[in-house]
Amino acid sequence: MKIAVLPGDGIGPEVTREALRVLDALDLGIEREEALVGGAAYHAKGHPLPPETLALAEASDGILFGAVGDPTCDALERHLRPEQAILGLRKALTLFANLRPAKVFAGLEDHSALRPEVAGAIDLLIVRELNGDVYFGEKGFRTTPSGEREGWDMMSYSESEVRRIAHAGFRAAQGRNKRLCSVDKANVLETSQLWRDVVIEVSAQYPDVALEHMYVDNAAMQLVKNPGQFDVVVTGNLFGDILSDLASMCVGSIGMLASASLGERQTAHGTFGLYEPIHGSAPDIAGKGLANPMATILSLAMLLRHSLGLAEAADRVEAAVARTLADGVLGRDLGGTAGTTEIGDAVLARL
Amino acid sequence: MKIAVLPGDGIGPEVTREALRVLDALDLGIEREEALVGGAAYHAKGHPLPPETLALAEASDGILFGAVGDPTCDALERHLRPEQAILGLRKALTLFANLRPAKVFAGLEDHSALRPEVAGAIDLLIVRELNGDVYFGEKGFRTTPSGEREGWDMMSYSESEVRRIAHAGFRAAQGRNKRLCSVDKANVLETSQLWRDVVIEVSAQYPDVALEHMYVDNAAMQLVKNPGQFDVVVTGNLFGDILSDLASMCVGSIGMLASASLGERQTAHGTFGLYEPIHGSAPDIAGKGLANPMATILSLAMLLRHSLGLAEAADRVEAAVARTLADGVLGRDLGGTAGTTEIGDAVLARL
Ligand SMILES: CC(C)[C@H](C(=O)O)[C@@H](O)C(=O)O
Ligand SMILES: CC(C)[C@H](C(=O)O)[C@@H](O)C(=O)O
Repeated sequence: MKIAVLPGDGIGPEVTREALRVLDALDLGIEREEALVGGAAYHAKGHPLPPETLALAEASDGILFGAVGDPTCDALERHLRPEQAILGLRKALTLFANLRPAKVFAGLEDHSALRPEVAGAIDLLIVRELNGDVYFGEKGFRTTPSGEREGWDMMSYSESEVRRIAHAGFRAAQGRNKRLCSVDKANVLETSQLWRDVVIEVSAQYPDVALEHMYVDNAAMQLVKNPGQFDVVVTGNLFGDILSDLASMCVGSIGMLASASLGERQTAHGTFGLYEPIHGSAPDIAGKGLANPMATILSLAMLLRHSLGLAEAADRVEAAVARTLADGVLGRDLGGTAGTTEIGDAVLARL
Repeated sequence: MKIAVLPGDGIGPEVTREALRVLDALDLGIEREEALVGGAAYHAKGHPLPPETLALAEASDGILFGAVGDPTCDALERHLRPEQAILGLRKALTLFANLRPAKVFAGLEDHSALRPEVAGAIDLLIVRELNGDVYFGEKGFRTTPSGEREGWDMMSYSESEVRRIAHAGFRAAQGRNKRLCSVDKANVLETSQLWRDVVIEVSAQYPDVALEHMYVDNAAMQLVKNPGQFDVVVTGNLFGDILSDLASMCVGSIGMLASASLGERQTAHGTFGLYEPIHGSAPDIAGKGLANPMATILSLAMLLRHSLGLAEAADRVEAAVARTLADGVLGRDLGGTAGTTEIGDAVLARL
């Protein structure tokens, strides 16, 4: 078994390093190979997703991804910017289902901006579509008839795109509390109308799952008002981007949330996927040893579980993280003082 | 001076009635005329925005709007659905600037899902663009080359559309704490890239306002994590829809939040506009006397202030609302027991 390690930019390398120390300590005999991605790859090789990085990712059983984003690349043409690396990987590897679980770890109820009783009730999974929507439609600049500049992006979803993510949502709900909330803006968007129609069609195959529909503006509100009402939320690429960051904050800190991006390809022991913390490259604190590596360590656990079939090792990692938090070893994002390596050490000591 | 009153659907008529009782009590000699809108108009006249309703709105100095939305219209073609009435009014009357203030009323800090110290710090204004974006681009269904159904919506902004809302944002910031946060998704969308470029151009004319840019996913997170950091937020139609509902919930209840939609046309004493509560038609509680009319009463205050130049009367209404809340007269949305009329009575008694 072989994993590709793509640390990326900003705090990416720091948090990835801690996850790899955890992997080493587990001594599972997993081969790994690192490659450049994002701004780091652009600066070294002129492209945020060099062909050799993509080839390595493709040939692996799973990808551990840090973060991309580099302010020194802001003025580059869009296709050369760091973000294109993660968008490119998701698309090229057909990783269409982004799973973003949000649950408050015991002891962290008081660290959410939400009242503890509201935060403590959160246990939800956001299933975000990753290969379509306004992210991947045609886009560009044009001149209007009156001679003005105009920026444009095409939003769309086809039946099959909605169908495969709807199945992912329903299956996830079957494995949890059998409730699925599909989020769209069908009162304004035809893309959403198609989304809703197809989700309803697919629901016929899952009579055991209770399906509801919610407009995205209301969903954003409900995630703050009463997040405990949600089990699985399935939504498109753009709304999923917004809602999952929002959910992460309800949990306490974006520094805690892992994610898996899965497609349909099977590995020897699971499903091929890319695993990354939800947080970004945080250039403001990069290189200072201040970043919380927990989201990356938890992403490693998801990789072990979903792509490598190593559920027991994943359990060990998650338990060590939970114990570390319960023991009060908290990063600055959670009001604590522990630095990146210190948190890594604490998890290792509890493995 | 004459206002158009469009109660609409669901709880719209109930909450509008209380606002009109407040208006009567103020005895300002303002003429008013009611018309049908939304599902109510569709059922009576076959169209959610009949020409006579639009004509009445156009001929008025300001519009008091209840809510539209009616589940019995869900299966209608899009152009006949209730929501098209509010979208049509915004567009036909060029009401491009939607102002949505969010501030916690004294005594309501404990009613937010956020911790009281977080909620208490909220005092922000969302300036949402209302005439463009993916709301008003071309849209439809088509068949892909492989024979699948596809739903699509064109997202776009032109220079002049961004410029006029940017000016509205900067001017609002000048009247407040001189900080403007422009929210976009420029790392993915060309529409956002144009938005950002134009906002930066316009900023040269407002050297006294500190401008920052934030991605929408981060903004959703920051609104929960640390809403006190925001003064004025300016954003597009779609992101504004999501973020303003979110902000309202941080404040405690969507039943408290008023909004003004303004264009450029001047009335005798102010700017022509449409005023509506942020909440919708809430069909589940319609007709039961349970809805909180505060957001509509506060919308009336905004109408008096912005379109009719009656700042003193507006102050009186807002003060009566604040006293009512401070006295603990709360609707069910805020954990209280007061019904629609009871809340109206309480405000009237404190005018
Ligand atoms: C970096 C950016 C393009 C990306 C996205 O919008 O998908 C990020 O916000 C995420 O959620 O993974
Ligand atoms: C009813 C709907 C079309 C509308 C919108 O999306 O603008 C509403 O959510 C609002 O925010 O006023």
